[in-house]
Amino acid sequence: MLHSELELRRDKIRALMAARSIDAALICCNVNLLYTCGTVVCGYFYLPLHGPATLFVKRPNNLTGEHIHPIRKPEQLPDLLRDCGLPLPARLMLEGDELSYGEYTRLAACFPDAEVLPCGTSLVRQARAVKTETEIELFRRSGMALTKAYEQIPTVYRPGMTDRQLSVEVERLVRLAGGLGIFRVFGRSMEVFMGSLLAGDNAAAPSPYDFALGGAGLDASLPVSASGSLIRPGQSIMVDMGGNFYGYMGDMSRVYSVGRLPEKAYAAHQTCLEIQDTIVAKARPGAVCGDLYDLAVDIARRNGFADYFMGVGQKAKFVGHGIGLEINESPVLAPRVAQTLEPGMVFALEPKIVLPGIGPLGVENSWAVTATGLEKLTLCGEDIVEL
Amino acid sequence: MLHSELELRRDKIRALMAARSIDAALICCNVNLLYTCGTVVCGYFYLPLHGPATLFVKRPNNLTGEHIHPIRKPEQLPDLLRDCGLPLPARLMLEGDELSYGEYTRLAACFPDAEVLPCGTSLVRQARAVKTETEIELFRRSGMALTKAYEQIPTVYRPGMTDRQLSVEVERLVRLAGGLGIFRVFGRSMEVFMGSLLAGDNAAAPSPYDFALGGAGLDASLPVSASGSLIRPGQSIMVDMGGNFYGYMGDMSRVYSVGRLPEKAYAAHQTCLEIQDTIVAKARPGAVCGDLYDLAVDIARRNGFADYFMGVGQKAKFVGHGIGLEINESPVLAPRVAQTLEPGMVFALEPKIVLPGIGPLGVENSWAVTATGLEKLTLCGEDIVEL
Repeated sequence: MLHSELELRRDKIRALMAARSIDAALICCNVNLLYTCGTVVCGYFYLPLHGPATLFVKRPNNLTGEHIHPIRKPEQLPDLLRDCGLPLPARLMLEGDELSYGEYTRLAACFPDAEVLPCGTSLVRQARAVKTETEIELFRRSGMALTKAYEQIPTVYRPGMTDRQLSVEVERLVRLAGGLGIFRVFGRSMEVFMGSLLAGDNAAAPSPYDFALGGAGLDASLPVSASGSLIRPGQSIMVDMGGNFYGYMGDMSRVYSVGRLPEKAYAAHQTCLEIQDTIVAKARPGAVCGDLYDLAVDIARRNGFADYFMGVGQKAKFVGHGIGLEINESPVLAPRVAQTLEPGMVFALEPKIVLPGIGPLGVENSWAVTATGLEKLTLCGEDIVEL
Repeated sequence: MLHSELELRRDKIRALMAARSIDAALICCNVNLLYTCGTVVCGYFYLPLHGPATLFVKRPNNLTGEHIHPIRKPEQLPDLLRDCGLPLPARLMLEGDELSYGEYTRLAACFPDAEVLPCGTSLVRQARAVKTETEIELFRRSGMALTKAYEQIPTVYRPGMTDRQLSVEVERLVRLAGGLGIFRVFGRSMEVFMGSLLAGDNAAAPSPYDFALGGAGLDASLPVSASGSLIRPGQSIMVDMGGNFYGYMGDMSRVYSVGRLPEKAYAAHQTCLEIQDTIVAKARPGAVCGDLYDLAVDIARRNGFADYFMGVGQKAKFVGHGIGLEINESPVLAPRVAQTLEPGMVFALEPKIVLPGIGPLGVENSWAVTATGLEKLTLCGEDIVEL
C-alpha cells in the first residue's frame, strides 16, 4: 500500500477528529488497522491529530520502519509515546463498538488523565464509508474476479447434488479465483461461511442473522445458508458468495434454475431487475437512502410481490448496504434512513423475492457512487441461468 | 439438543455463579448461546440462579416454546422479566470480554439498580472448559469426519500446484466431509479462513495472529497460511485445517512431503512424536499444564531442535490449547501455567518444528482428559505422507 494512500485515509479520520476536538485515536481492531496501516497487525496504532502516526506492534515481530515500535502490553503506551516525543492525549477516542468491554476499560485505564471517548468505531466507519480511488479500483478487480468464478458455476453443477455440495464447489471456484474466503462482518452477532447458496424453500427459512435471506444451514451451530437438501427440478437457486479479494468484500448474487421455472418466477425476477434499474437511475450524490428503499417496496407492491419481497415470514428490512473491508458498512438503504449518497460510497443493492415452492429470485450487484450516478462493479449476466 | 444436556450445562454455570453470589447471567454472544441454548439466536438468554432460564429472541422469528419470548430491544428486558414473574437481579453478570464496550454499557444501563459484573465471559468459559459426555461424543464424531477428509489429501495433490491450490482442495475435502467451515476464535484479533496449509519456508513467516505457526498468506489483509508459492520437491507441507463439525472445533495437523525429505526432517518429526508420547503418558487429572509444556521444551532441546521448536524467529509460546466451540479455550499448555487438567477437558496438543529450507514438521491431535489419562479424538496416521 502506498504511503500516500494511507496518509489520505488517516487525514480523513483526522478531519472527523478535529471536528469533535479529539486529539488522538488509538486503533487496535483488525479492519481499522488494515484501513489505516495497510496490513493487519497485533498492536496499537496511535493517530494524533498533530504529529506523526505511530504503530506499536506486538506481532509480527519482523515489522520495522519509521514510526514503528515494538510493544508487549498496552500499559507501556504512555511511556512509549513520551519516548517518541508525542504528548499524551487530552481527548482520546477508542473503538467502542469493536473493542470488548474488558479491552476498552484496560486501554482507557492506561490514560488516566485523558477524556476517553468510545466514538472511534463510528468515526472510523464514517471515514471508511467514502472510499478512495485506490479502494474503488480494488473493488473493480474484486468484482472481475468474482464474476470469473460465477461464470463457471454451470460447469460444476451435477444432477442429484445437494444444495450443500453445490455450495462447496462454488466456494472452491471463488477460492481458486483468488478469494481470501474470510467473511468480515461488523458486530459480533452475524456469522456465515464465505456466503450463502439457497435452493428452493430453504431460502424462506429464517435465520438469527440480519442477512437479506437466511437458510436453515446444516447444523444448529451455524443456522444459515444451504441445508443439505437435494436440488430438484423446478427450484431456483441463489448464489450469494462473499467476494473478498484484496480485503474488499465485493457482493454479488445470481440465480440459477434446474430446468424451467414456473412463469411467476420470471415475473418476480424481472421485478427485481426493474427495482435495480429504477434505483440505479435515481441514485446519485444527494439521493436519500430511505427514498431509494421506498422505491423498491413500491415496485414490489405494484407487481404483486409485496409479501415475498426480501423474504417471507421473516423479512430483511433493507434493500442495500454499504460494503468495504466489512460486508455491512455505511450507507444502508432501509426505511426512514435520512443519510444521502456521496461520491465514493460503495454499496450492494440486492432486491430479492422468495416464492414459496420455487425459491429465491432477484439480483445483487456492487455499485460505486460517482459524481453523477453509479458505476457497476460486478459485471456478470443477470438472467436466470438454467443449469 | 436434549433439554437434559442443556440443563447440565446451565447448572455448571449456575454453580460458578453461586460461588460468587451472582444471581443472574445475561448471555448474548453466539458461542455462549449455542452452549446454553443449543442454537444460535439473535437475542438474550437470561439465566437466573433460581427460577426458570428464559430466552428473549429477536431473530429468528419462528422460535417458540416454554420460556421463549420475543423481544425487539434490550431496554424491554426489565419489563419482560417482570411479566415472566422473575425478580430483577441484584448482581448480574455480562460477557465482558465478548460484548463490545458499547453493547455492554447499553445492557448494563437496562439494570440501573443491579451491580453489573463483566465476569460472564470468564465464568462461562470456565464452565465450557470441562466438556460433557455429549460434547466429547461430538468431538469423537468430529475427529472421525476430519480424519476421513485428511485421508483423501494424497488424492488431490498434483505436481506443479501452489500451496494455495492444494489448500483449496483440502478445504473442499473438509467441507464435503461435513465441515461447517466457520472458524470460531475467542477474542477479536485472531483470524484465519478454515485453517492453514504451510509448505516449506512459508511456515517460518511470522503472522500477527497467535497461532502455533503463521505463514505469510496471500494478501496483507489476511497475513496467515498459504502464500501462493509453488510446492517444490524436498519441502514438507503441514495441513492444519479446522475441523468444525457440529460446532466443535476438532484440531489436527499432519505433514506431507513431495518426495523424500532430508534426514533431519524425519528426526525433527520423530522428536515431535516423542514429545506427544511423553506428554500423553504424563497427562491426567491433576497434571500441571506448565509442567507438560516444560516436558516438550526439554525434549526439543535434548534433540537439538530448541531453536526450531514452535517456529523460528517468531515462536509460539504454547504447545497445546483447549478446544471446544472455539479454537482457543481453556486450558493452555504454556510456560508457568499452574492450571491442572480435569476429567472432561479437551485440548489440542501440537508439538511442531520448523526447519529452514525444508518446512514444518510435527503433529497435532485432539485429546479428551479421562479419569485416568487421555483419549485420542483424532485417529489418523502420524507419519509423514509422501505425495
